[in-house]
Amino acid sequence: MTYQQRLDFALEVARAAGDFAAGHFRSIDSLSIESKGHQDLVSNADKETETLVRDAIEARWPDDGIVGEEHGRKHGTSGFDWVIDPIDGTANFVRGIPQWCVAIACTEHGLPVVGVINEPSSGEMFHAVRGGGAFVNGKPMQVAQAFGLSDGSVGAGVSGRTDRAVAVAMVDHILGEGGMFFRNASGALSLAYVAAGRLLGFIEDHMNSWDCLAGLLMIEEAGGTINDLDAETALDHGTKVIAGGPNVYPQLAGMADELFGA
Amino acid sequence: MTYQQRLDFALEVARAAGDFAAGHFRSIDSLSIESKGHQDLVSNADKETETLVRDAIEARWPDDGIVGEEHGRKHGTSGFDWVIDPIDGTANFVRGIPQWCVAIACTEHGLPVVGVINEPSSGEMFHAVRGGGAFVNGKPMQVAQAFGLSDGSVGAGVSGRTDRAVAVAMVDHILGEGGMFFRNASGALSLAYVAAGRLLGFIEDHMNSWDCLAGLLMIEEAGGTINDLDAETALDHGTKVIAGGPNVYPQLAGMADELFGA
Repeated sequence: MTYQQRLDFALEVARAAGDFAAGHFRSIDSLSIESKGHQDLVSNADKETETLVRDAIEARWPDDGIVGEEHGRKHGTSGFDWVIDPIDGTANFVRGIPQWCVAIACTEHGLPVVGVINEPSSGEMFHAVRGGGAFVNGKPMQVAQAFGLSDGSVGAGVSGRTDRAVAVAMVDHILGEGGMFFRNASGALSLAYVAAGRLLGFIEDHMNSWDCLAGLLMIEEAGGTINDLDAETALDHGTKVIAGGPNVYPQLAGMADELFGA
Repeated sequence: MTYQQRLDFALEVARAAGDFAAGHFRSIDSLSIESKGHQDLVSNADKETETLVRDAIEARWPDDGIVGEEHGRKHGTSGFDWVIDPIDGTANFVRGIPQWCVAIACTEHGLPVVGVINEPSSGEMFHAVRGGGAFVNGKPMQVAQAFGLSDGSVGAGVSGRTDRAVAVAMVDHILGEGGMFFRNASGALSLAYVAAGRLLGFIEDHMNSWDCLAGLLMIEEAGGTINDLDAETALDHGTKVIAGGPNVYPQLAGMADELFGA
């Protein structure tokens, strides 16, 4: 089974990449930081971690394409593309906040079929495979079954690129529906938390493929609902993200329509 | 030295309490949850962890007072009072999000002289002692020296008790000054992050003593600035909180005046 082989590979390389990045995290004081803005502080660790993952992919799956946050696009011929966020939550990483992760997805014809998110600080490894379920440290995940936003928190996807008025309106809407917002500065990890039922849902006007595809597959495989992904464009241009448990999804989608436009 | 003995005790009991609560966290599926609202989900773990800490204090420091989140007030005769938040970030704890901590402070005549925050999930132990500095896992902490909010993130103190308009205005102000907000649902941990220079600062219209006194001492001892604490009232009635690096403090204080009233 092709997906299983790619899943096993993704787990292995995410573990190696997490260990490698964690070494950098521990010696964070010595990192050179090139500021790209609040959400996109780029570090040597980021680039080197992506290189580690890319090298492993090119050796094992030479015909697959690669999309990485740091090093650009490799086109493949197999129909499979790997999508790499070497360190999601870079702003946390460079400040020393132990909430960041390695996110790796594999798409087939543009839609995710394997997703792995490794958070070294807490020792949690999340994974999903198309048709095969979603898991955290081997235990099946299930999205929250709540019917209203007052039953938990919603991940508020706000980055340095988000329009200020949209960000403020998002917080206002969530609180207005009796909910609470959560923003830990790692979008990929927040999506994994939605899959695990820890957050009710997550919305963001735009996420890059490397930030969201692994987590979105996990949410689907954990019984959640996500917005339609455009297989032609998501990989290279990213997507709007609305994701949550099946019962709160309509409420989140209505909110997103108001905030981002339908 | 009296503070040193109480510090050693606080570190020991915070470690034991963290281990105890972490055991509950791992078996979280079996917890019975009594909902008090978004920020104040109370669990058995919360109550039992506080009992563990209280019992240790009563055995070792029988003349000290105790203020705890779960079990109320014991008045003492020594001039020292212990302030316990057995699990700060309970909403995270009960949902399975590994971002919560045990916070213990000791006050002398109403002002903190010892503060300890233990986050078991990442293995970080923060501590401070009046006049003796602030440390994370034994390494000295220093607040951020940034001059503007664009150099990092500000912890947005928003709880289920916060007025919606104030919460929305807080986010708007932070973004409007070129900053970014962070809300991980643990106020005590956020204050420790300010002390460690990981967040630029933190503001909240009202925090209970058990949520804030340990972290505020850490921020002072790490070279930061905090709003004046009222020694007569903070212990039993809590306080407004404005805290940050010395260079951004004036900006945060101005923002807080606009948001909360001077």
